Amino acid sequence: MSNTRIATADGPLDHLTSASWVKPTSVPGLIGCTPKFEGILSTLQTVLTAVNPHGMAGPFHCAPVVPLETIDRAQYADAFPQLLGSVHALDTQKADQLASDRHQRATDVVLAPAVCYSVYPEIADRRLEQEQHFDVFGYCYRHEASAEYGRFRAFRMREFILVGGQTSTWEWRDNWFDPCDQLFRSLGLKFTVVAASDPFFGPGDQFLRASQLEQNLKYEFIAPVHPEDEGTAVASANYHRGHLGERFAIQFADNGVAHSACIAFGLERLVSALIHVHGDDLANWPELDGHGAAAVDGRMG
Amino acid sequence: MSNTRIATADGPLDHLTSASWVKPTSVPGLIGCTPKFEGILSTLQTVLTAVNPHGMAGPFHCAPVVPLETIDRAQYADAFPQLLGSVHALDTQKADQLASDRHQRATDVVLAPAVCYSVYPEIADRRLEQEQHFDVFGYCYRHEASAEYGRFRAFRMREFILVGGQTSTWEWRDNWFDPCDQLFRSLGLKFTVVAASDPFFGPGDQFLRASQLEQNLKYEFIAPVHPEDEGTAVASANYHRGHLGERFAIQFADNGVAHSACIAFGLERLVSALIHVHGDDLANWPELDGHGAAAVDGRMG
Repeated sequence: MSNTRIATADGPLDHLTSASWVKPTSVPGLIGCTPKFEGILSTLQTVLTAVNPHGMAGPFHCAPVVPLETIDRAQYADAFPQLLGSVHALDTQKADQLASDRHQRATDVVLAPAVCYSVYPEIADRRLEQEQHFDVFGYCYRHEASAEYGRFRAFRMREFILVGGQTSTWEWRDNWFDPCDQLFRSLGLKFTVVAASDPFFGPGDQFLRASQLEQNLKYEFIAPVHPEDEGTAVASANYHRGHLGERFAIQFADNGVAHSACIAFGLERLVSALIHVHGDDLANWPELDGHGAAAVDGRMG
Repeated sequence: MSNTRIATADGPLDHLTSASWVKPTSVPGLIGCTPKFEGILSTLQTVLTAVNPHGMAGPFHCAPVVPLETIDRAQYADAFPQLLGSVHALDTQKADQLASDRHQRATDVVLAPAVCYSVYPEIADRRLEQEQHFDVFGYCYRHEASAEYGRFRAFRMREFILVGGQTSTWEWRDNWFDPCDQLFRSLGLKFTVVAASDPFFGPGDQFLRASQLEQNLKYEFIAPVHPEDEGTAVASANYHRGHLGERFAIQFADNGVAHSACIAFGLERLVSALIHVHGDDLANWPELDGHGAAAVDGRMG
């Protein structure tokens, strides 16, 4: 995202507000969503449950805060120190004495930076005999500095995760490409797919970042989420290698450290991308859960 | 809630975990919810939309964090200092220099202590010519010191709010009693209704607290949320008088400061109360959205 577009950040938000999709707050990047917006988001959830090749009952719902010890163990703050929001509160043991004192201390929870962090503690410190599939959903928080529409501080993520052997997690991640590509076409989205990198393995580690691109560890589905947007990641597929298996001491059968992969969907961004394509009047929208009713070739480039 | 039951707090949580309703985390009072649990919660949302006498499209979805300035203006921290969770993060202007420094500062957002705080800024500093109805939903956070099942730190609240004149807000609050009573009976809940007080008007202000009881400003629907529970508030109806109208400078027509009232439903507690009544096997549950299929007289006392 280019910073030069911050000056026009209010344009898309004003439009989406007047068209009854969202409501702004006094804090940049923090919005609420109307029933009109939620109807689309809810349909997307149903569609994603149906598209999941592993066939699960629907997502596990994570709370918007997670134990600090989980995020510490994942070494999230080493990679993204500026994005993490931690929760502070009065020391409850001293609440009576401190009732008039607003000094707060760090608690044992932080805002969830991604929903997949809820699943690793569940299978930590053990040897898995079978690969484990997860379907999780929840609010995430990232302390974004930008006010641009689409750079939400609080947003909802739907994430499918596999923890297992090296080959199967890699293949599973790649096998998501086709259903995801077909889904986005059937929804009428205009999108591109790009190899991407992020400082997942530590900040400033150019070697690992370049290596991540070379090894094709991450690809993103990019679509415009408002008329002035050149493209924002609405989904990303990530192969973590053994990074989280090591952190959470998860072994897989006779294969040593477990590998993991995930595909994550940013739901507010996806709804916004759909609004950008289909407009403000729901009467003009195709049936999103029809799978094919809106089947047009939306692939750009 | 008596503290003597903390020792057995793991009992209900262990049971609900093994019956695939919830999953615990390493932090007391912080749980995630399975698709089985979410199916019931989603049905409850539909039922509450249908029960709302004002007939609205469904809830507005609030983010789990709200602007600090909203909570300051509502004077929430004066009343409940020990429950508020504030969000701290690195100073993003200095993120590069501070990448290895985990010292964080208070940001401009706090975790939402109730969902209704999202609506007052929207109508602040103005004179309403018509009363305003709201239907809102979202995650709340309260830094509860208890580990007892039902004392969730992060939980979802559905809230109906009216801002308007003194008489109409009072009557509207009281008019919620019958539909709520009928709904809970039709759901098969065992419940009582009690007048209640909270330190809404400031901590330690015994006069105002006694006055709140006398004036019947708050009543709660109380139901057991697990087998060892004597009763937990699953919904509460509150008449705020002009408290929030004053804080947010909202006038109502020719009547001076606007009054407000709300009815709030604790969704995880309601689902837990239903599980307590109907058991772990969904095959034995009545149709919750049938309205009458499960109509038994559940009123206790």
